[in-house]
Amino acid sequence: MIKIVAVMKIKAECVDTFKALARELVEKSRAEEGNISYSLNERIGDPATLAFIEVWRDQAAIDTHNATEHFTRILPKLGELCESAQPGNLFTEVEF
Amino acid sequence: MIKIVAVMKIKAECVDTFKALARELVEKSRAEEGNISYSLNERIGDPATLAFIEVWRDQAAIDTHNATEHFTRILPKLGELCESAQPGNLFTEVEF
Repeated sequence: MIKIVAVMKIKAECVDTFKALARELVEKSRAEEGNISYSLNERIGDPATLAFIEVWRDQAAIDTHNATEHFTRILPKLGELCESAQPGNLFTEVEF
Repeated sequence: MIKIVAVMKIKAECVDTFKALARELVEKSRAEEGNISYSLNERIGDPATLAFIEVWRDQAAIDTHNATEHFTRILPKLGELCESAQPGNLFTEVEF
């Protein structure tokens, strides 16, 4: 299981456009076979900072996702609406 | 529902100690009534960068958590093992 946290600062005037575009990405990503969860999240008190928080079965599922039509079409459009973006952080859960 | 993502860079020689201390915090936090999920995660390819990813029912549950014996006792010890820490990011999910 791999978790991705990708935090982005959106240009203030572009937040609504970003969310409208992201909706299709969220819905189609959730429908992918290797996806466990996929959400867009808004930082409390800072509505122009958004984060995708995603959980995938494995790296192969992420590779497939990164090559999908919806990802390759929508992600560059989202990128244009960002003021800045942290690199996506990939994590694995520590098992105790 | 409120999600917390807290990313920390641990002093290289302290990673095992951090995980051992964090185990009790994870287990006791998961047992709290308002907790939905609570995990410690390791950045892929960068094992000294760890992230708590948490989901709580509401702000009241977080306030209760922040006042628990396990949180107030263990968190300062974890802080001493960090080289740096991003401020905890609190998010709410965007509903489409």
